[in-house]
Amino acid sequence: MLSANNTERKSWINYDNNCDFPIQNIPFGVFKTNQNDFHIATIIGETVISIKNLEKEGYFNKIDLAEHTFQEPNLNKFLEHDKSIWRKVRNKIAEIFDIKNNFKSKILNQNILFNKNIEMVLPVKIGDYTDFYSSKDHATNVGKMFRDPENALLPNWLHIPVGYHGRSSSIVISGTDVKRPSGQILNKESNKPIFSKSKLLDFELEMAFITGKSNKLGESIDIEKAEDYIFGLCLFNDWSARDIQKWEYVPLGPFLGKSFNSSISPWIVTLDALEPFRIAGEKQVPEVLDYLKFNGDKNFNVELEVQIKSLDSEPTTVSKSNFKYMYWNMAQQLTHHAINGCNIKAGDLMASGTISGPNKSEFGSMLEISWAGKESIYLNNGEERKFLKDGDTVIMKGYSQNKDIRIGFGKLSNKII
Amino acid sequence: MLSANNTERKSWINYDNNCDFPIQNIPFGVFKTNQNDFHIATIIGETVISIKNLEKEGYFNKIDLAEHTFQEPNLNKFLEHDKSIWRKVRNKIAEIFDIKNNFKSKILNQNILFNKNIEMVLPVKIGDYTDFYSSKDHATNVGKMFRDPENALLPNWLHIPVGYHGRSSSIVISGTDVKRPSGQILNKESNKPIFSKSKLLDFELEMAFITGKSNKLGESIDIEKAEDYIFGLCLFNDWSARDIQKWEYVPLGPFLGKSFNSSISPWIVTLDALEPFRIAGEKQVPEVLDYLKFNGDKNFNVELEVQIKSLDSEPTTVSKSNFKYMYWNMAQQLTHHAINGCNIKAGDLMASGTISGPNKSEFGSMLEISWAGKESIYLNNGEERKFLKDGDTVIMKGYSQNKDIRIGFGKLSNKII
Repeated sequence: MLSANNTERKSWINYDNNCDFPIQNIPFGVFKTNQNDFHIATIIGETVISIKNLEKEGYFNKIDLAEHTFQEPNLNKFLEHDKSIWRKVRNKIAEIFDIKNNFKSKILNQNILFNKNIEMVLPVKIGDYTDFYSSKDHATNVGKMFRDPENALLPNWLHIPVGYHGRSSSIVISGTDVKRPSGQILNKESNKPIFSKSKLLDFELEMAFITGKSNKLGESIDIEKAEDYIFGLCLFNDWSARDIQKWEYVPLGPFLGKSFNSSISPWIVTLDALEPFRIAGEKQVPEVLDYLKFNGDKNFNVELEVQIKSLDSEPTTVSKSNFKYMYWNMAQQLTHHAINGCNIKAGDLMASGTISGPNKSEFGSMLEISWAGKESIYLNNGEERKFLKDGDTVIMKGYSQNKDIRIGFGKLSNKII
Repeated sequence: MLSANNTERKSWINYDNNCDFPIQNIPFGVFKTNQNDFHIATIIGETVISIKNLEKEGYFNKIDLAEHTFQEPNLNKFLEHDKSIWRKVRNKIAEIFDIKNNFKSKILNQNILFNKNIEMVLPVKIGDYTDFYSSKDHATNVGKMFRDPENALLPNWLHIPVGYHGRSSSIVISGTDVKRPSGQILNKESNKPIFSKSKLLDFELEMAFITGKSNKLGESIDIEKAEDYIFGLCLFNDWSARDIQKWEYVPLGPFLGKSFNSSISPWIVTLDALEPFRIAGEKQVPEVLDYLKFNGDKNFNVELEVQIKSLDSEPTTVSKSNFKYMYWNMAQQLTHHAINGCNIKAGDLMASGTISGPNKSEFGSMLEISWAGKESIYLNNGEERKFLKDGDTVIMKGYSQNKDIRIGFGKLSNKII
């Protein structure tokens, strides 16, 4: 077992047992103080810890880190280190905050713990962003709605993790308001496009992983080593304007229907922290090509939930899904991405695509839940939705839990304006 | 007339009248010395000029530039300045090298002129990369080959500049070898995918523009101001593996069939330098929506040429096209890109899509020239091609010329290995 994953470990920082960030999690993020000072950080319970200041105080001196790795305004320099270094830093933090090694008195005077007057910011300067389409139930639902219900999956879907390049610049952090986009939409009556605000604004429940290690241009990534390139994961909302998307996407794929905004949760949970939650994915039939074959369990059991809170309602849960439903796992996605020699870089972000489960309550987008607007969804206070309204806040949550431990992702929450 | 565009101006640096880089061009690039020192630079004739060292020597002291703008390893800091500043720097350089203001003796002792032992490198740290699909002849050719010859253009094509997000990390500079990619390809006999090297490797003749000014997330860009966001242009080869692309691209667009490599020419020619070569584009019928309507000439008359040089042949010209054939101009592309609120950043790259003219000799890809492999192309020495072979070098050139002046782009040349 990884030292930081030791479920026996307790911290001298107090927290609730059901919180997302026990001492066994140690995710990585970045906050900004009200003096506009950026800190690479982690969190235990509800206490945010400045890794920047821990480094200044010499706590990582014995780890082979590049100089000032944590004095940066983002995690990219840290991401460029080897997985063994990521692990040593996480282990060291767990040790510092372990109740048995009480550094409390030393740390309290060093401006290392933060609870207020900080704002979480984008933890990574994202290079390229790729969005996959790896949930079989989601792809099947879309195929049934818009193509042939009898042959919902396209011929390539069971052979390759289908994906496309997305827009990096418009990826924002939880808490950022999302402006309803305008664009060209086909008017059904006239069969001509009009300029309009999107009327079919949607969320997509996804998870995303952040890459560390780079491969050189022209080199591929062996599937058994692919996970060494993955630093960690966060929640991802791939906001989608269905009407803009529908008119634009043939033949080159999603563009403005997606590029107005995507949002991520602030804490990157390491792949190491999720180690206890490995689970087998669905058996892949037909058999995949050799370069996509893997050993062991490469799916992860992460409970996911989407809530909508209108201006006049408390949050209503509209979907519960699970990351385990991915047909194509992250190792397969990454290996496929580089099989043509495409170079992956530290700080790239790769999203799963909408994660839908087999049951209606597990569908990961309004498109599916309302079955393309045919069925209504009701919020707690009786308000009806088919797609999202201005003023709605979409909240995504995720956590892994077993009898010993709960490793959570915090909250991804954005309001539509 | 812009001062740097004055066709009367002569330089104390000698050059051939037919060269791509007269003193009226003043493009921007970056070179690396054999001591691994990076210099932002321009070129007159065949003489490369270190703008980095010009700045150090105080030549730009009267221009309102951020400190050390040209001491960077790329143009991004310069790109973030306003168009008026780009213009002042270009004017100043023209003045310094004007024969009437002979700074020659002063400059020759200051390591400002370079002719050898340097290597051109990527001039910009590219943020997001977008590829459009804006040549009507190209889109029509593709539609005829793969869809319905009678309705070759898809319903949206005449209403929106269709585009997609591409992969930034694999964009390389002229001179970099291009490794033939491998991936999944559908085997026609078995109707099953196989893993294989691409057998249908192709070039795409494109031009690309680099953006400067940013718009905020959620804000659009008025079409009459769109050109203020464009710093300059270069040649662009959107290398394509047709067999990988064909199997993967439905429904989310090009991915691994393109992401293994794209290449650009090293010198960014400013939009200002191309001012004398404005030309009207094709009349757009049906009329476009209001946000895409523009005044004046927004196409540019740039002669383009593609050559193939095999291991055993001299270069053979296989295509001559012209940037003027773009149906959707750059201002329309950029305005459309931001109409949903997508934020454009300094250092983004937007490519035109394959530029084909109406005649067969003007087709911008092997796919079109060989009509999907049905017709043969012959090189000078009799070698036959339908797609590209290992050892082939693809050379792209471009220049604008009128009776007064020639403004060129230099050469984009990459060998397939």
